[in-house]
Amino acid sequence: MDSFSVAERRSAELVHDIAKTPKRFRMLTGERPTGALHLGHYFGSVIERIRLQGLGVESFLILADYQVITDRDSMTRVREYVRGAVLDYLAAGMDPQRTTIFTHSSVPALNQLLLPFLSLVTEAELHRNPTVKSELAASGRALSGLLLTYPVHQAADILFCKGNLVPVGKDNLPHIELTRVIARRFNERYGSVFPVPDALLTATPEVPGLDGRKMSKSYGNAIALGMSADETAATIRRTVTDSERRITFDPETRPGISALLSTAGLCLQEDPRLIADRLGDAGSGALKALTIEAVNEFLAGHRERRAEFAADPGLISEVLARGNERANVEAAATFDQVRQAMGTVYG
Amino acid sequence: MDSFSVAERRSAELVHDIAKTPKRFRMLTGERPTGALHLGHYFGSVIERIRLQGLGVESFLILADYQVITDRDSMTRVREYVRGAVLDYLAAGMDPQRTTIFTHSSVPALNQLLLPFLSLVTEAELHRNPTVKSELAASGRALSGLLLTYPVHQAADILFCKGNLVPVGKDNLPHIELTRVIARRFNERYGSVFPVPDALLTATPEVPGLDGRKMSKSYGNAIALGMSADETAATIRRTVTDSERRITFDPETRPGISALLSTAGLCLQEDPRLIADRLGDAGSGALKALTIEAVNEFLAGHRERRAEFAADPGLISEVLARGNERANVEAAATFDQVRQAMGTVYG
Repeated sequence: MDSFSVAERRSAELVHDIAKTPKRFRMLTGERPTGALHLGHYFGSVIERIRLQGLGVESFLILADYQVITDRDSMTRVREYVRGAVLDYLAAGMDPQRTTIFTHSSVPALNQLLLPFLSLVTEAELHRNPTVKSELAASGRALSGLLLTYPVHQAADILFCKGNLVPVGKDNLPHIELTRVIARRFNERYGSVFPVPDALLTATPEVPGLDGRKMSKSYGNAIALGMSADETAATIRRTVTDSERRITFDPETRPGISALLSTAGLCLQEDPRLIADRLGDAGSGALKALTIEAVNEFLAGHRERRAEFAADPGLISEVLARGNERANVEAAATFDQVRQAMGTVYG
Repeated sequence: MDSFSVAERRSAELVHDIAKTPKRFRMLTGERPTGALHLGHYFGSVIERIRLQGLGVESFLILADYQVITDRDSMTRVREYVRGAVLDYLAAGMDPQRTTIFTHSSVPALNQLLLPFLSLVTEAELHRNPTVKSELAASGRALSGLLLTYPVHQAADILFCKGNLVPVGKDNLPHIELTRVIARRFNERYGSVFPVPDALLTATPEVPGLDGRKMSKSYGNAIALGMSADETAATIRRTVTDSERRITFDPETRPGISALLSTAGLCLQEDPRLIADRLGDAGSGALKALTIEAVNEFLAGHRERRAEFAADPGLISEVLARGNERANVEAAATFDQVRQAMGTVYG
């Protein structure tokens, strides 16, 4: 059985275990604050996180500011993106009492774990990571030391709070595998400190950007959750379509038309092909109008709550301050055990 | 002019500047606690550190416990080696009021600097480091992530306290060069936070181990500073020599005899060739007796002070606790500036 099948089977067991004993799990999820959260995040991960929170799984959500500079030279607007993400998470239903929202750079003891963990992996293992390879290719830059080592840093993100559950898409399985290797090697070498975390495979729907490519902050093809209805309409109207009146779902040859159909389909919970059939020969103008309405209706509640939270001047700072404090307490407790296990106690 | 000549010239200027304005400098030095400090350390670095302390240069001395696992799988006896090093430093004349003695793993904010710093270097730059290459070859193991990145970690060791002076041998110049590159790139990208530290080239005398190879804890050819006079005598007597009565200094063909002559020469401050002439045809027994006496006499004061310090039950813990506290204060102050510069302030 290949490793993906193993992961799939394990994931199915996990779904069962989580439903039965949610309190046995501690989930680690996160975001790289390189831009505003958009519909791709919403359907791809936010919904699943809220669902697991609802089941009673305690979770830690890391706003991974250090990962911003794995493949770029600046932290431009990182404060804005971090604070915006907090608003979106609250608006989406995340409860800061049950989900610890914190920023990477605010938890030194978490980051310190990178050092012992780096001693447990070889350079060859770092190089084998397919995500590092693909992100390197996408960045078009020389491989930075931070990108090379970031799967190890991700192991620190998961293990600092003894997270044992990480919802991921298929592409991120190799990261979790490396985290598992690191946890096992540490425990073998120094004594049992860390859980060996499980990957929970999430069936994330494909959310295309408005140009048919992956929805991404950096492609400029994204509908941010925090946009106004008018901004959303303007963004959708800019989608490049063709002049054929008949609406059909064909991502290969009609990327713009199909992206609009997918977006509307997700928001309406309807098959994009059925929407196309319904529109028939109505043309791309009608498709855009339908998509604008679907998105704005879908996000109306989110945006209303977001605006309410944004109106509370101290809220974001308070959520982050409490999350960071909580994360630091966890990190300090774990680090004490690491110190004892490694024998680096000198008093 | 090649880079070594540049470093030599700069070093000569530094000697002048330090004598004139010692308060302008903050020195960072360190030790990897993989064994007991020995004569090689004493002549190779300890004397120079005490000399600079005496000139009024404030300094930070790092006991780099995380570096123990760059090329090995265990931290065995790290506590003993760390505590022994503190005793040796105190006995050698280090004043904990003027030299902050601290351990790597006790300063999370120092270690956290590794993350932004890793983003400033490429994998290719990490690979170019000749020390990493030679230590890798010596270890006979696969390259660990920690060994690959340790020059960047060393940059964090130097820069966390804004050290601007690092006494090094020629072999370590490339490390300091990488630290200078990192400091410059950080300052260019985020604003001026770090000094660009200078390497002070030290003319360390060659201290051979008793088998003629480099004196090293791992070769078992070392005279530890903390040995008793009897242990020293036994160790020196075990030196493999030849049966020729005539004593001559010839490290190539007579490594044992020449190592004894070098060791005696360093302790007596005399040219080993002159000692050989003096001994003439007296044979290796006489040479060993002379060396034993020279070493034991040289270390008598050190060992007496060491024993006194060792008799004070709380001393080592107190020195480390104060050093670590001081290092954490420095690290936190630097990190606040780093946070401001990078914009990762979210409150």
